Amino acid sequence: ERNKYENNDVAGVVTGLAWTSVGGDILFIESILSKGKGTLTITGNLGKVMKESATIAMEYMKSNADELGITPEVFSKYNVHIHVPEGATPKDGPSAGITMLTSLVSLFTQKKVKKDIAMTGEITLRGKVLPVGGIKEKILAAKRAGIKEIILCAQNERDILEIKESYLKGLKFHYVTEMRDVIKHAITDAPVKNAKVLSVD
Amino acid sequence: ERNKYENNDVAGVVTGLAWTSVGGDILFIESILSKGKGTLTITGNLGKVMKESATIAMEYMKSNADELGITPEVFSKYNVHIHVPEGATPKDGPSAGITMLTSLVSLFTQKKVKKDIAMTGEITLRGKVLPVGGIKEKILAAKRAGIKEIILCAQNERDILEIKESYLKGLKFHYVTEMRDVIKHAITDAPVKNAKVLSVD
Amino acid sequence: ERNKYENNDVAGVVTGLAWTSVGGDILFIESILSKGKGTLTITGNLGKVMKESATIAMEYMKSNADELGITPEVFSKYNVHIHVPEGATPKDGPSAGITMLTSLVSLFTQKKVKKDIAMTGEITLRGKVLPVGGIKEKILAAKRAGIKEIILCAQNERDILEIKESYLKGLKFHYVTEMRDVIKHAITDAPVKNAKVLSVD
Amino acid sequence: ERNKYENNDVAGVVTGLAWTSVGGDILFIESILSKGKGTLTITGNLGKVMKESATIAMEYMKSNADELGITPEVFSKYNVHIHVPEGATPKDGPSAGITMLTSLVSLFTQKKVKKDIAMTGEITLRGKVLPVGGIKEKILAAKRAGIKEIILCAQNERDILEIKESYLKGLKFHYVTEMRDVIKHAITDAPVKNAKVLSVD
Amino acid sequence: ERNKYENNDVAGVVTGLAWTSVGGDILFIESILSKGKGTLTITGNLGKVMKESATIAMEYMKSNADELGITPEVFSKYNVHIHVPEGATPKDGPSAGITMLTSLVSLFTQKKVKKDIAMTGEITLRGKVLPVGGIKEKILAAKRAGIKEIILCAQNERDILEIKESYLKGLKFHYVTEMRDVIKHAITDAPVKNAKVLSVD
Amino acid sequence: ERNKYENNDVAGVVTGLAWTSVGGDILFIESILSKGKGTLTITGNLGKVMKESATIAMEYMKSNADELGITPEVFSKYNVHIHVPEGATPKDGPSAGITMLTSLVSLFTQKKVKKDIAMTGEITLRGKVLPVGGIKEKILAAKRAGIKEIILCAQNERDILEIKESYLKGLKFHYVTEMRDVIKHAITDAPVKNAKVLSVD
Ligand SMILES: [Ca+2]
Ligand SMILES: [Ca+2]
Ligand SMILES: [Ca+2]
Ligand SMILES: [Ca+2]
Ligand SMILES: [Ca+2]
Ligand SMILES: [Ca+2]
Ligand SMILES: [Ca+2]
Ligand SMILES: [Ca+2]
Ligand SMILES: [Ca+2]
Ligand SMILES: [Ca+2]
Ligand SMILES: [Ca+2]
Ligand SMILES: [Ca+2]
Repeated sequence: ERNKYENNDVAGVVTGLAWTSVGGDILFIESILSKGKGTLTITGNLGKVMKESATIAMEYMKSNADELGITPEVFSKYNVHIHVPEGATPKDGPSAGITMLTSLVSLFTQKKVKKDIAMTGEITLRGKVLPVGGIKEKILAAKRAGIKEIILCAQNERDILEIKESYLKGLKFHYVTEMRDVIKHAITDAPVKNAKVLSVD
Repeated sequence: ERNKYENNDVAGVVTGLAWTSVGGDILFIESILSKGKGTLTITGNLGKVMKESATIAMEYMKSNADELGITPEVFSKYNVHIHVPEGATPKDGPSAGITMLTSLVSLFTQKKVKKDIAMTGEITLRGKVLPVGGIKEKILAAKRAGIKEIILCAQNERDILEIKESYLKGLKFHYVTEMRDVIKHAITDAPVKNAKVLSVD
Repeated sequence: ERNKYENNDVAGVVTGLAWTSVGGDILFIESILSKGKGTLTITGNLGKVMKESATIAMEYMKSNADELGITPEVFSKYNVHIHVPEGATPKDGPSAGITMLTSLVSLFTQKKVKKDIAMTGEITLRGKVLPVGGIKEKILAAKRAGIKEIILCAQNERDILEIKESYLKGLKFHYVTEMRDVIKHAITDAPVKNAKVLSVD
Repeated sequence: ERNKYENNDVAGVVTGLAWTSVGGDILFIESILSKGKGTLTITGNLGKVMKESATIAMEYMKSNADELGITPEVFSKYNVHIHVPEGATPKDGPSAGITMLTSLVSLFTQKKVKKDIAMTGEITLRGKVLPVGGIKEKILAAKRAGIKEIILCAQNERDILEIKESYLKGLKFHYVTEMRDVIKHAITDAPVKNAKVLSVD
Repeated sequence: ERNKYENNDVAGVVTGLAWTSVGGDILFIESILSKGKGTLTITGNLGKVMKESATIAMEYMKSNADELGITPEVFSKYNVHIHVPEGATPKDGPSAGITMLTSLVSLFTQKKVKKDIAMTGEITLRGKVLPVGGIKEKILAAKRAGIKEIILCAQNERDILEIKESYLKGLKFHYVTEMRDVIKHAITDAPVKNAKVLSVD
Repeated sequence: ERNKYENNDVAGVVTGLAWTSVGGDILFIESILSKGKGTLTITGNLGKVMKESATIAMEYMKSNADELGITPEVFSKYNVHIHVPEGATPKDGPSAGITMLTSLVSLFTQKKVKKDIAMTGEITLRGKVLPVGGIKEKILAAKRAGIKEIILCAQNERDILEIKESYLKGLKFHYVTEMRDVIKHAITDAPVKNAKVLSVD
């Protein structure tokens, strides 16, 4: 499934891991820019908590623009739209938080996201990464989809240690506690194809 | 039914395929412009997910204006209204996404939509086309309505292969994965009758 | 009842036909202008679909101002209020759409609506007229109220053919498919008494 | 009750008649002005239809400012607040419409409302007065409260004719079909005490 | 309880009387100013009717600024926040109306509220005071809290007359019908400690 | 848990105490600034009363800027976002009020919050601290998390006196009635690491 509609040539597309009533799944966070006045639009049949994650990611990025290498003036010159595909499926919960921030940072830096990486974790406003549930199911789904590296909260390491080793073969884990480590692992230095130059005029 | 109130002389009118509790049906997406400040109005007794599809289509078009041949400055000079007729019927789901984008691109380029073409598929923010359900019922409805070409997500090809061949006679299918292919198949180079000149003053 | 509070001396008052739980009825669409900034207010204890009809009528008129003989600049200089009297009765459905557009066109052109005419039909954004239900009950109510001409969607002709001929005596029907034909049949060339001059300053 | 907190020295205070689950009652419509930008605030634990009546009254007054002797420019310089006392009682329905318009016209002309007059009737956007229910109960309540003149829709005359004559003793009725007749009967030529001068600067 | 967190050194703090499911209670209305554009914020877990009381009090004060000794220009230069403490308790009803107005007038005049006074009564838009319920329970609660003077609507005097005299010992009652009398009894001529000077620049 | 994602190097992060259906817990209030126009965003799956606490804290700070050592002009130059982590858990009630104000004051003064301190208490608009429930459970949770000092409302002292002494070992209590005492106990004079300079240009 994954190969069918994703690659890392586009800024703002990041693979997350979801835990649904029928097991684990991968999901994509997409975000795009258009010239505007700084509005944030969120779609994808999301519940209140997942929408809040998008808001937190946006505000965290604005508040830490310098460290992330983004000129703060661009925020008021572009509208941002964050979407989570497969509109027929209602989605909620905080676990896409770090995926959303990674998407936004890729979008505003126009840097490529690393290939074959996925992630799951709650974001806090000061950039901490919190643990989330459903780790086993999410890992299995990631493997089925060909994911090779996974970013998790350090507190979720205990969940990985309970999974049969053979299931984990071919997967590399990054355990993090800070958003800056997520960014470091997930976003490359290479610009995306046809990278946009964000202007502040 | 279709012949009674549709032709392709008008910009922004595109035929979609719907799957209702009483079987498949065709539906129309209509969109119009009026001088304004860039607001988007959505009507037609639509649920939340279908309204989100309209927002995604609008934002995708704005973010890819150059590639679509649209001057981005017009977006803030015109209000857009997207309507799905037959207000007595509640409608929801993501499957009208590509139909809505086609409608908007026809509207802003003032190009004719191809005659006797219909489509169904979810749109994503970066222009991927996702598969949708109810394909068999939708195809039968399209045929009853005199449709000759149908655009579907490549992943829906498997659903077509399960339909008895005789039902498919006279129908040509275009399987796509990218919105740009939908546009290529659905929108002609010919301007609509009395094409408007969109001004940015 | 009708004679008691209606005449055609005032712009923006048009007779529609409604189908309620207790049978057919006539209803009135009223609209007025006041100097303002282009807002649209809708009252009359209306449901979501009927409010959408008012929005569609307004946007259709704006988008087709030239053809309708209206200077587009006036839209941003006046507020419009559409009301459907008898606030104690909840009202919904798309069937007042063409009545609402007729009301708005009369209002903005300050032309008289034809006497003793009523109508029912759904409006679409590109000006098609769609069929509606409850035709028999609506026709009987129209006759009781002294209506002499009725505008219907061409697809509703079949409903008329099923009504006993004696019930139709004294009624003249106009079957239409396009809003421009509704306007042609319903609005006269005569200005209303004390016609307002709409200014764009 | 009435004498305890009402007199006609203040602009914008008008007596209406209500029909509640425990019988008829009088109610008061109060309205006040403050310097502002033309907003309308409505309070009094009112339901949707009663709030719509206030909007209709306001828009009718704006659209007919000249005939009512009001300089239209004042509408954008003052905020209006309409209140119906006794917040503990939920109130709804269209029957306070003509009372609300009378209140607003008194407020904007700073003219006294006639003493000991009450009214009940639905207002329409073009100034028609429509009949309302509960007439017998309302009349009895008006009499208990010392009301001497009552304004009703002409179509409610039939309800009065069914009331025992002795109950009507001491009451004078004005049957009207147009809002302008309500205003004529209800508002005097005398300015209120300490009449405000509405300025357009 | 009362002495623990209230005194009259601060502008905008006034003691009201509430009637809850577990008997009478005192409550406090607090209001504060901050430089701004005239917005009104209302908190305290309040229901719709109690929020309306705050709006009515605010609008009454604006409309009667001159009589109350307030320069009207300040209203658009400051934001007002009205709060009713003890957020865990839902509160509703119109009986805090006169307490809210007293709070606002104290706030905008920066005058001390009289010590050991409490009040309960509905406010109307033109400054009448209406009777409220639960008088006996409220009086007992006031006495327990050390209140010495109580302001009530004149129509509530009958409720006081039904209370055993011994319960009323040490309480002085002010029966009023007009808001101006509430202000006269409740607000002193002394400025609060560290009175703010409200500026209109 | 606490050590895993909290330290006091960052402005705006304060430890509160919560009382949930499964016992006491610690929670964090986070707040951040970004250049903007003074909007307040609140996230964390909060109920109405807890959101009101954030509003009260914000308005209290604005109204008492001078005493708190904050230049009032900065409020309209920065947007504030308050978040309570662990989005999967719904949270409500007034008891985080003083924690929220402490967070905001630390944020706007860029001063360090004292290490190993936690607090719980309702805030009122004029800066009083009100007692809250669940004290025993909250204290146990604080101890488990390594908290050493706790700020409580003076009226909650009685709840502490009912707790077995051995449970309280190693905990120091500050009983307060005024917000200014909370600030005094909780916020140090030391600037946070990399303290921002808030500009008013
Ligand atoms: Ca999936
Ligand atoms: Ca995720
Ligand atoms: Ca159909
Ligand atoms: Ca479709
Ligand atoms: Ca009727
Ligand atoms: Ca109709
Ligand atoms: Ca009453
Ligand atoms: Ca009335
Ligand atoms: Ca209490
Ligand atoms: Ca009270
Ligand atoms: Ca926890
Ligand atoms: Ca707390």
